[in-house]
Amino acid sequence: MALLSVLTPVLAVVLCLVIGFILLGSRETKTTSTSTGKTEGASKADFRPWVDQDLQDDTEITAKEDEDGDWADSNEDEDLLHVPYSPPRYPEETMLARSKDLYTLMNQRRSVRFISPEPFPQEVIDNVIRTAGTAPSGAHTEPWTFVVVSDPETKHQIRRIVEEEEEVNYRQRMGDKWVHDLAKLKTNWIKEYLDVAPYLVLVFKQTYGILPNGKKRTHYYNEISVSISCGLLLAALQNVGLVTVTTTPLNCGPQLRLLLKRPANEKLLILLPVGYPASDATVPDLKRKPLDDIMVHI
Amino acid sequence: MALLSVLTPVLAVVLCLVIGFILLGSRETKTTSTSTGKTEGASKADFRPWVDQDLQDDTEITAKEDEDGDWADSNEDEDLLHVPYSPPRYPEETMLARSKDLYTLMNQRRSVRFISPEPFPQEVIDNVIRTAGTAPSGAHTEPWTFVVVSDPETKHQIRRIVEEEEEVNYRQRMGDKWVHDLAKLKTNWIKEYLDVAPYLVLVFKQTYGILPNGKKRTHYYNEISVSISCGLLLAALQNVGLVTVTTTPLNCGPQLRLLLKRPANEKLLILLPVGYPASDATVPDLKRKPLDDIMVHI
Repeated sequence: MALLSVLTPVLAVVLCLVIGFILLGSRETKTTSTSTGKTEGASKADFRPWVDQDLQDDTEITAKEDEDGDWADSNEDEDLLHVPYSPPRYPEETMLARSKDLYTLMNQRRSVRFISPEPFPQEVIDNVIRTAGTAPSGAHTEPWTFVVVSDPETKHQIRRIVEEEEEVNYRQRMGDKWVHDLAKLKTNWIKEYLDVAPYLVLVFKQTYGILPNGKKRTHYYNEISVSISCGLLLAALQNVGLVTVTTTPLNCGPQLRLLLKRPANEKLLILLPVGYPASDATVPDLKRKPLDDIMVHI
Repeated sequence: MALLSVLTPVLAVVLCLVIGFILLGSRETKTTSTSTGKTEGASKADFRPWVDQDLQDDTEITAKEDEDGDWADSNEDEDLLHVPYSPPRYPEETMLARSKDLYTLMNQRRSVRFISPEPFPQEVIDNVIRTAGTAPSGAHTEPWTFVVVSDPETKHQIRRIVEEEEEVNYRQRMGDKWVHDLAKLKTNWIKEYLDVAPYLVLVFKQTYGILPNGKKRTHYYNEISVSISCGLLLAALQNVGLVTVTTTPLNCGPQLRLLLKRPANEKLLILLPVGYPASDATVPDLKRKPLDDIMVHI
């Protein structure tokens, strides 16, 4: 009995430790599945014999097993008629000349912040957007909405939202650098081109679609798809002698979405002011990397 | 003494509970900071008076306050000379004609899985990659590496890696659909074009760079930037009459990165087989959304 009375606290401690470990264990499991299982996709990925730890970005995590990586190989295709495809074929010297010409044209493109208010035909913007809409997309979802704003009042409201957020960004960046020239910094959050440019193009990515039965359908690779379409959009602008600057307004997405009355499945990806360059436009004297720095041939 | 001996187990239990709660508490804190603080950026974002809950994707989370959303407004620019910029300007009718011509050309582009083994000049690929390299990028980091593979053995190893993972994907997708025609499914994970296409272009995004002092420098918006450059790449291929299919091989990134000896900061974004279309190439009879479905004018 005396032995038992001595042992009781020891037993109690052991019991507590066991319960404690069980509690910690279950919590650990929950934690792991919460942090990696941001979406259903990740937990399903656990079934896989080999999981790609290196690519756990947004795209991979949201990719479920009903989506393969081959964008045009989607399930929808199975029911579609396949038709012969024979695009124009050029002789080799023509290919070379065309490849060089396009490179020369695109290499003249620069991000331009000084945009002229001069108008140009709306039909040009229409064709530029049409061109952007020819981009490939995951499972051919075409998950893009291009909001083209020429209304001066709406442009001004967009400017107000963007500048307000930019000012917050810059003031925070200042931090202990109070001595820094405030006037110089101010030019950084003033975005005059948002009022001046005849058109603002706000590119929204549709993160999901709505099926006929009302259920959500995730748009896999929507950010990559919409960014690719922006690449075509930039090419199309350069092709007609218009300029823009590629901006991703930090933290402005929800406010701009509400202002432009876009639905909840659309998120702002890129904002492009579009116009002719101002006659006194300047650009920083940046250079691009030479081919050897961006290409590896095996 | 007897009372003490009775109390001892109770005290031991209380002590254990206290220690247990302290342990759980600290673990909770750690868990929270790990799951939300995926990068330094997220915790810094907490300082902000207004945090964009709607845009908590990978891009926003990694965007720190030393990066604004205006890609060419980077800190580096401040020290750069600004030079006048006056690109070619076209009359309105020329703009209209050019915008229409490019749209017509790009609208002929399709994702093609049937690629001819016929060779074409390497210089064409060089110019296509040069064109892709003219894309804008966050803070002008140019965070892309284009690995061009023409070596048959390397192409075959790429095919082996991709098909192995695809087969796992498809077999899992089968699930309880055992009765489904296996032979039909098999065609989905066989990627003959990876052997046949004269060139494979593997596009890597550089998630960070290495500064002269050896420290890492995060490449903000690297996925958007590299995807935009892929848009230019697709335009450049279409412009010379070559075809490709945009693929994002699921879970193959790390194996392909090792095979191609790319450094740890590079992650595979897109794999493009490139060549002339096979003479009997077919494509699914897909339609694109009309302008009214992708554009909103305000």
